[in-house]
Amino acid sequence: MDPAAKKAVLRLFTYGMYVVTTANAEDRGAFTANWLTQCSFEPPMVAVAVENDSHSIEVMRTSGRFAVNVLPSGSREIAGHFGKHHKKVGDKLAGRTYDRSPGGCPVLEEALGYVECEVRGTLPAGDHTIFVGEVVEAQLLREGEPLTMKETGFRYSG
Amino acid sequence: MDPAAKKAVLRLFTYGMYVVTTANAEDRGAFTANWLTQCSFEPPMVAVAVENDSHSIEVMRTSGRFAVNVLPSGSREIAGHFGKHHKKVGDKLAGRTYDRSPGGCPVLEEALGYVECEVRGTLPAGDHTIFVGEVVEAQLLREGEPLTMKETGFRYSG
Repeated sequence: MDPAAKKAVLRLFTYGMYVVTTANAEDRGAFTANWLTQCSFEPPMVAVAVENDSHSIEVMRTSGRFAVNVLPSGSREIAGHFGKHHKKVGDKLAGRTYDRSPGGCPVLEEALGYVECEVRGTLPAGDHTIFVGEVVEAQLLREGEPLTMKETGFRYSG
Repeated sequence: MDPAAKKAVLRLFTYGMYVVTTANAEDRGAFTANWLTQCSFEPPMVAVAVENDSHSIEVMRTSGRFAVNVLPSGSREIAGHFGKHHKKVGDKLAGRTYDRSPGGCPVLEEALGYVECEVRGTLPAGDHTIFVGEVVEAQLLREGEPLTMKETGFRYSG
């Protein structure tokens, strides 16, 4: 396989930008995600690939719950903030205003809306693990266009 | 949960448009997919949600292999064609010109490029099954912008 071709084709994939949040009794986590998609209509389910060396992955495993915050167009800075590694910057939610979903996941005040999911399965996938969650709560917070990877100019693929 | 809010938030997710193809010794399959994402850098892996009642799912299970064809901007008609159900229209590749990937998966002549994947795992997800494949071959066929769900005006989410 030609690594340059592999990279070029994978970088043609189209992505939205989301902040995935989770919380258990002792801790919380939040990270920018673009490897995320709906994966079932009935029941409604969402899949997200989570870095194996992330802080949030253990919180997600113990809480069995996560929320997908849909970022609005224009919020590149928020995507950048939550894209940093916990081991470098610590708690990314510190000092930010946020609400809580019914199940206790942080909901960013800037989000267009969120879905809250209960984890139904996981699948190892190389340096990430896929979490599949059933959508159990949802709220549309405001009208607007979603932020896309293309708009941000960021790259997380290839 | 408010079903209208659930639908509205899930319809804010951003998607590209791909044709996923597969072939075993006796049969072949091709279907339009948007619930698809890279899911690992090392090794490079791709995840795609496949309808449980699709024709292609059994071909993918037996071949253990699939290709992701990245559609170019302007190819809404191709996405529409391969989005039809095999049980209604039969072999969607009949009468079309296509090449083969090294592993034997159909490669559409219109594609910007493709990655060929070997299935490494599957995970049931409601009315779909997630297939995770490791990228083993890739070819960039031409320059161009990828087709997005937004450009097509199609809907497969909510």
